[in-house]
Amino acid sequence: MKYSGRYLSLTREELLERVHAQMSEKRFVHVLGVEKAAIALAEQYGEDIEKASIAALVHDYCKERPDTDFQSYIDKQLYPEAISQFGNEIWHGLVGADIIHDELGIADSDILNAVRHHTTGSANMSLLEQIIYVADYIEEGRDFPGVEEARQKARTDLVEAVAYETQKTLTYLVEKGVPIYPKTIETYNVWVAHLSK
Amino acid sequence: MKYSGRYLSLTREELLERVHAQMSEKRFVHVLGVEKAAIALAEQYGEDIEKASIAALVHDYCKERPDTDFQSYIDKQLYPEAISQFGNEIWHGLVGADIIHDELGIADSDILNAVRHHTTGSANMSLLEQIIYVADYIEEGRDFPGVEEARQKARTDLVEAVAYETQKTLTYLVEKGVPIYPKTIETYNVWVAHLSK
Repeated sequence: MKYSGRYLSLTREELLERVHAQMSEKRFVHVLGVEKAAIALAEQYGEDIEKASIAALVHDYCKERPDTDFQSYIDKQLYPEAISQFGNEIWHGLVGADIIHDELGIADSDILNAVRHHTTGSANMSLLEQIIYVADYIEEGRDFPGVEEARQKARTDLVEAVAYETQKTLTYLVEKGVPIYPKTIETYNVWVAHLSK
Repeated sequence: MKYSGRYLSLTREELLERVHAQMSEKRFVHVLGVEKAAIALAEQYGEDIEKASIAALVHDYCKERPDTDFQSYIDKQLYPEAISQFGNEIWHGLVGADIIHDELGIADSDILNAVRHHTTGSANMSLLEQIIYVADYIEEGRDFPGVEEARQKARTDLVEAVAYETQKTLTYLVEKGVPIYPKTIETYNVWVAHLSK
């Protein structure tokens, strides 16, 4: 794919290099899987393919960053107070979007929000945000109970796929006994209305 | 048991009558079960038996009230904004405590908080609050997967029983796909640290 230059001054190849340099081989393969899934969903649901590609490629750009990188952003910027009690799992999206803005020069708010909310979701998700949230969950490398049902729902009803993923993720976290970031509940409380009955 | 008159101007028999008049036979049997469990926990963990009895007997006083009874309280008093989006399941405790204060003349804040938080729990629960929260879950009439484990934990470690109940209840609600009241997550996020590993 040839990027237009509208959202990013890098070519796709240059972006791939920058992203690859930030992570393990295994994670890079996951990122390419998310891009493939996101482009397929963008084609199906009528989203800009280039935005889907960029958002997917950068969504985990900060997943392997040390906590100190996030801490300096958390100290300087305005995030909800609760964020400091959490860790990389929450920070790499919510804070990562701001790091990506600064380091890659991406300014498009839809792309940044897709990165920002790819883990927690949000009460109001744009089409692109929904696509990245779901693509991250169903990409071809994923293998967990329920992933096939999520893929099936993504093929037929993106909103239902978002609701299903939200419910499954929250169940997983609670059964695991880890703290829940408040935004995750905001997402759940809104999207749960779209679960198939 | 003979009440001292310190927390309530009614005798236990008069209170039983007032409570009975508010609910079905089935629920009244549950209430008596919660009282029995609460007194046993109060004896074990060193809480005032009379407070445990009163709090248990009144905890579901408002469970069968029409929504309009709560609505007039919600309109007049200060509750978190989100409360109006929920229903009796949340209201009968959080709003019910204020109705009980007004209708039964109970002013002891520990007893009222035990009623207030018996469904959602809260981040900081007094010993009495923990006792009513757990007694409601494990009373002898309860029969659901996990209740025996909850009873076992209550016999050995009340804090662990609170954590276990909180995790199980949240899992149940999310799997059921119903909205989660924010306070329930506050409770979970604090108590989850006390889950047995």
